[in-house]
Amino acid sequence: MDSPGLLERFPDDALRPLATELFAELRRMSFDGVGVTRESFGPLESAAQELIARTAAQHDLLAEHDRARNLVITLPGREADRPFIATGSHLDSVPRGGNYDGAAGVVSGLLALVCLRRLGIQPARTIKLYALRGEESCWYGKSWIGSHALFGLLRETDLVRPRFDNGRFLRDYLEDVGADVPAIARGEKLLSPQSVAAFLEVHIEQGPVLEARGLPVGVVTGIYGNLRHMNIICRGQAAHAGATPRFLRHDAVVAIAELIMRMDAHWKRWLDEGRQLVITHGIIATNPQEHAVSRVPGEARFSVEIRADNHETLSGFHDLLQAEAQALGVARGVAFLFDEAIINRPAPMDAQWISRLENLCEQAGIAQMRLASGAGHDAAVFAHSGIPTAMLFIRNAHGSHNPDEHMEIADFLAATRVLTAALLAAD
Amino acid sequence: MDSPGLLERFPDDALRPLATELFAELRRMSFDGVGVTRESFGPLESAAQELIARTAAQHDLLAEHDRARNLVITLPGREADRPFIATGSHLDSVPRGGNYDGAAGVVSGLLALVCLRRLGIQPARTIKLYALRGEESCWYGKSWIGSHALFGLLRETDLVRPRFDNGRFLRDYLEDVGADVPAIARGEKLLSPQSVAAFLEVHIEQGPVLEARGLPVGVVTGIYGNLRHMNIICRGQAAHAGATPRFLRHDAVVAIAELIMRMDAHWKRWLDEGRQLVITHGIIATNPQEHAVSRVPGEARFSVEIRADNHETLSGFHDLLQAEAQALGVARGVAFLFDEAIINRPAPMDAQWISRLENLCEQAGIAQMRLASGAGHDAAVFAHSGIPTAMLFIRNAHGSHNPDEHMEIADFLAATRVLTAALLAAD
Repeated sequence: MDSPGLLERFPDDALRPLATELFAELRRMSFDGVGVTRESFGPLESAAQELIARTAAQHDLLAEHDRARNLVITLPGREADRPFIATGSHLDSVPRGGNYDGAAGVVSGLLALVCLRRLGIQPARTIKLYALRGEESCWYGKSWIGSHALFGLLRETDLVRPRFDNGRFLRDYLEDVGADVPAIARGEKLLSPQSVAAFLEVHIEQGPVLEARGLPVGVVTGIYGNLRHMNIICRGQAAHAGATPRFLRHDAVVAIAELIMRMDAHWKRWLDEGRQLVITHGIIATNPQEHAVSRVPGEARFSVEIRADNHETLSGFHDLLQAEAQALGVARGVAFLFDEAIINRPAPMDAQWISRLENLCEQAGIAQMRLASGAGHDAAVFAHSGIPTAMLFIRNAHGSHNPDEHMEIADFLAATRVLTAALLAAD
Repeated sequence: MDSPGLLERFPDDALRPLATELFAELRRMSFDGVGVTRESFGPLESAAQELIARTAAQHDLLAEHDRARNLVITLPGREADRPFIATGSHLDSVPRGGNYDGAAGVVSGLLALVCLRRLGIQPARTIKLYALRGEESCWYGKSWIGSHALFGLLRETDLVRPRFDNGRFLRDYLEDVGADVPAIARGEKLLSPQSVAAFLEVHIEQGPVLEARGLPVGVVTGIYGNLRHMNIICRGQAAHAGATPRFLRHDAVVAIAELIMRMDAHWKRWLDEGRQLVITHGIIATNPQEHAVSRVPGEARFSVEIRADNHETLSGFHDLLQAEAQALGVARGVAFLFDEAIINRPAPMDAQWISRLENLCEQAGIAQMRLASGAGHDAAVFAHSGIPTAMLFIRNAHGSHNPDEHMEIADFLAATRVLTAALLAAD
């Protein structure tokens, strides 16, 4: 580590007012009467970038934009030709969202750089803070637009995605802010993954785990991938509810209920074995055209979503689901018809960085736990590009994507302290 | 018994052509291109009555109508002042229905009387065959109209029920056929239950049990009552499917699945203990306004129908359902909100008549089993009026209310032989 005493020297009291002021100003500029709204590639996301850039400049940090108009704040290192360390998150929000989902990671990175400046520490490697654009999928039906653009991962068809509320194309918004649309459309890599030694993202947890466990921060082990069947049909045999006894029924609803309970038991067992996954049946329905209170249901449909932090868990649990459906089908005289699975790969976090973050928490006396991220993040795009990636979660009382999300500034500063030390901790 | 040798003397071969001819003629007159249609209180139900009345007259039996325009065929007994023995069923059908649901019982009763006439047997008690009208609920949303009218059980509001296909009132159809609408509207008893010693109904089974067991006839132990909740809401808590781990979920769909499986296990146990019941969840649905593949479902709804042959089983199982829902609600942090239960009372068959029918089957060498009727029948109305009532089911290969229903004429004649003997078997 460049500066072993940093954790003790972290100017908590000096940085607290800056953090408070930045969050207050972000809220003020984007308050919509209910929550905050900072549209992806829209004026309020731009205004938030300007606030961060202005503050960076005030602390002698270089602020510029890349060709996707992500904001990049640079603290030059002593060995400028070596791959740099990146940190950051996003500044956009969902409509009527919360102030911290995304912005907390950007402000945390900015404070880390300000801290290093104040302490007069010049790192070995250059450090770059990314305030990424267009992370939220609600605006154009596509997540992580800024980081996708960075690595040449957008397609022409993505550029003509209409914004949900006014139908105007993403391309037009990209042009508005001055992005290099032709290069993005060509799938040009605006940033070479080889030039990045690591990406570290601080983000509020979007679930209730840290709150439930009473821990200020969490070290993310991986970002869940998911495997979805939007529509599995269970086909049995409709029959007169009164005249058809138990042993002659092929009841689609009971068959689905049994499959759900079997998978629930497997889920519990896998968790007990230390695996990371969630399973959700968000949709279930008998057919309104033919269902009736007095009719043994001959058909019903349901959805399955499996999320897991690695591919083996995802595909292993999917295999188990299909095997159980097959066995249950034979036992109950029904058939489960699966639609095509939609798969998003998990993004494991870098094992060495996970250990480093844990060690830094321990050294700083900050209680933490390992946990997986069930929600997606820009960090997954960096990880899939081959960049060693890690994340720190900050406790958040009321979930995300709503005005009630709540982060204690003390928890935020604890995470920032660990991030600051981590930015100096690369080999 | 009036005539001990009757079972042996039953003129099977002589009656078979008459049965075949009557069923063929019924089908011919009411064939609709797909199945048969004999509308309740409509022209084809009347035409079917006329066929039965004409055939009765040809065999020296008195045919007349009661004030609800049910057809009544009488074979006078030696002791005309004693309560009479009634048999019968209905002649209407559902649209595009089968030829035997209802008509089999009327033709069976007619053949029984013809048999007694042919053999020159005059019974002690008078025997009356009822060809009841308006049994099927599909036409006016009300079952057993003819038998309800007999016992003064229709209300003024029932008389203005619109026919499902043309909106014309039941009252108008009653007037068309010459029923005493004012008496029916007043709830006048057109038949005194005290004047009826017993009611015996032959009917095809509407389920697959006799077919599955390879038995030609069944002796009905009781007609199921039912208890329905059209809409039970399970309220949990919606949450981000990725960010919410298992131990912090309040998943409405998994809670319902567990309740369904618990009740399924109880159902199996109760059946093993010899109780008669069925349970059906014909409807289940998450809320289309808010459900999503990636959202832990915060709310879902489902229906429950319990049918059982006695009130204790019905209410006992209902109590168990509510207790399990309560326990599960506590365990899973969800609430089950029950709408008002709709209850139709079970109609137990008369124990002495059940034994008589079983004994007659045995004497005739006809294999049978006891079974409950999950579907409703006119016999339930007679039983609820205090009349000792019994039913014989005939094996039927393909369910009822469809053109594929299938009855072997040999099975029909077996049931008719038992019915004929039974009509003479009253004390």
